Amino acid sequence: MPQPKLFLAGPTEVREEMFHAMCRPMIGHRSKDYQALHESVVKKLRQFMGTERDIFVFTSSATGVMEAAVRNGVSGTILHTVCGAFSERWTDISRACNKEIKTLEVSFGSAIRPKMLTEVLQKEQFDAVTITHNETSTGVMNPLKDLCAAIRSAQPDALIFVDAVSSFGGSVIKPDEWGIDVLIFGTQKCFALPPGLAFAVVSPRAMARSAQLTGKGYYFDFVEMKKYADKHMTPATPAISLLYGVDAQLDRMHAEGMEGRARRHQEMAQMVQEWVVKHQLPFTAEEGFRSPTVTSVTAPEGFDSDEFRKKVKEKGFAIADGYGQLKGKGFRIGHMGDWRVEDIQNLLRIMDNVIA
Amino acid sequence: MPQPKLFLAGPTEVREEMFHAMCRPMIGHRSKDYQALHESVVKKLRQFMGTERDIFVFTSSATGVMEAAVRNGVSGTILHTVCGAFSERWTDISRACNKEIKTLEVSFGSAIRPKMLTEVLQKEQFDAVTITHNETSTGVMNPLKDLCAAIRSAQPDALIFVDAVSSFGGSVIKPDEWGIDVLIFGTQKCFALPPGLAFAVVSPRAMARSAQLTGKGYYFDFVEMKKYADKHMTPATPAISLLYGVDAQLDRMHAEGMEGRARRHQEMAQMVQEWVVKHQLPFTAEEGFRSPTVTSVTAPEGFDSDEFRKKVKEKGFAIADGYGQLKGKGFRIGHMGDWRVEDIQNLLRIMDNVIA
Repeated sequence: MPQPKLFLAGPTEVREEMFHAMCRPMIGHRSKDYQALHESVVKKLRQFMGTERDIFVFTSSATGVMEAAVRNGVSGTILHTVCGAFSERWTDISRACNKEIKTLEVSFGSAIRPKMLTEVLQKEQFDAVTITHNETSTGVMNPLKDLCAAIRSAQPDALIFVDAVSSFGGSVIKPDEWGIDVLIFGTQKCFALPPGLAFAVVSPRAMARSAQLTGKGYYFDFVEMKKYADKHMTPATPAISLLYGVDAQLDRMHAEGMEGRARRHQEMAQMVQEWVVKHQLPFTAEEGFRSPTVTSVTAPEGFDSDEFRKKVKEKGFAIADGYGQLKGKGFRIGHMGDWRVEDIQNLLRIMDNVIA
Repeated sequence: MPQPKLFLAGPTEVREEMFHAMCRPMIGHRSKDYQALHESVVKKLRQFMGTERDIFVFTSSATGVMEAAVRNGVSGTILHTVCGAFSERWTDISRACNKEIKTLEVSFGSAIRPKMLTEVLQKEQFDAVTITHNETSTGVMNPLKDLCAAIRSAQPDALIFVDAVSSFGGSVIKPDEWGIDVLIFGTQKCFALPPGLAFAVVSPRAMARSAQLTGKGYYFDFVEMKKYADKHMTPATPAISLLYGVDAQLDRMHAEGMEGRARRHQEMAQMVQEWVVKHQLPFTAEEGFRSPTVTSVTAPEGFDSDEFRKKVKEKGFAIADGYGQLKGKGFRIGHMGDWRVEDIQNLLRIMDNVIA
């Protein structure tokens, strides 16, 4: 069977052109050539999201940077908003770092509301609050801008950490305006590149907090990262090939623009959602909070989702299994990265055939 | 100027064939295809070094795994042997993790001797001892086997952590026989692949130690790694492209064998050392401990090493600057990875011309 086209919840399909960019010869990571590459990537990222903030390049998955946020920002208690498997994982990370945690949890498929946050924040003081912008396990997109505003209003000093792993580059996110202190994303979702690099956009107040804390470790220390970032380098050897890819992909992303990309992802989501409605299948995510990048379907009684995915795959399209409690009992469609409306049409046509 | 051939102290030159292997399409990291890839890499690594131990795949540079060893193995005091910039960095890492540290330090260019270690170990109890097998900043290779024996004999319970970043795959290292508890290496040195993945070979007693400790964090936690490794996966999304590369490269490494590779690297080192002697240049590393993978030359009075490197580069060969105190006052030649004796001959011929 030839390799199917990937409509997973990540990694996403990588175009030939990007592989080509990543095959450029190695360079020393303390060379001027490397500094030029690093500077170019950071500059393009800043332009793309309209910020002048520090942007750190981590050779790790985004999970590592979620840990970085906790280590650099929390000495007291951290509040985790939890609405699925990936927001839940952040609580595991904080626990593993011996931090005091509180959670604000909603049921699987639901979104966090600003009012819920306000209530919790009125009762107790937190060092930081985490928000999972797009919960990949359920296909819920949380109302990030409003959640940030609620936190800022209730507790101006709490840092805001945002996992934008499966939304950055596929939706509008404004770190400065919305007051996000650590914005986290990786290469293997809307960037449509292989996994292995992750980024943190860090506010001055998060940097100030980090400077006060000890025991943060070395690899994910923002202060150490900044020391090198100011010279367009990283403290440890970076994944150079992936940086070549990011540099090339950012040209394309800049041409389309953050708003343009958000629009395209919303159009793709719309088409998938219409398909789900047409076939009278239940969404995992509640109405009004369905993600522009991932749609999760809960299998109704009698619908064999494993069989469905298998048949779709035989026709050349890989879609993802349901996550966690929906494993084998649902499926997820990733409509992100470099896919276009026509690609989604092709996928949906195939899914139509299979379901018939 | 066309891209020069890389004889740096890392990253090393990556062959076309390896880039090709790394351009295979993405796969989901929770798929059977990924499990097969992961299992294949670990199996080949185990065969190559003759071990049945746990081998963990980290998406990070080896610096991250040096931190992992500290976090998973130390609650009391750690002894760092220091003989240059990279062994020194390990002390920074332990400090950043709030660990109690002691150092056994020798001058820049010297090697650690078993007797020195024994003396220190007779005075105080340590949770772990770190050894930098090959100190890339000075071109010193420490006598790893004898150092391990000295530690085992003086303090049977101290864990032994070994940074083999620039020696693994270019020298003989036997983790089981020598009693190495955490053996660390990456992809960008003797593996001749781009940076971005690092490995830890972990002994059962290091696993037992890790199970007792808390506050280790999530991303580098051996217990969490093992939970997934037992299913041929990683907790977080791995750098899939690099794993494709490692899988392909290990076939070649297996064919040559650990001893065969050690022999080839020793031959290349021998040639470079003879060139240094012929030109009456001073080695940075003391006699008897010169590395098979990196040779460092300290520039004598009146020798402009920057100018020398520049001219060598113009002829198509990149060699590295001196490190730390030797920056601009020496040069280093990396003779590692997939280079062969003929390639070193070409480099030395060019260097002969330039020096004349």
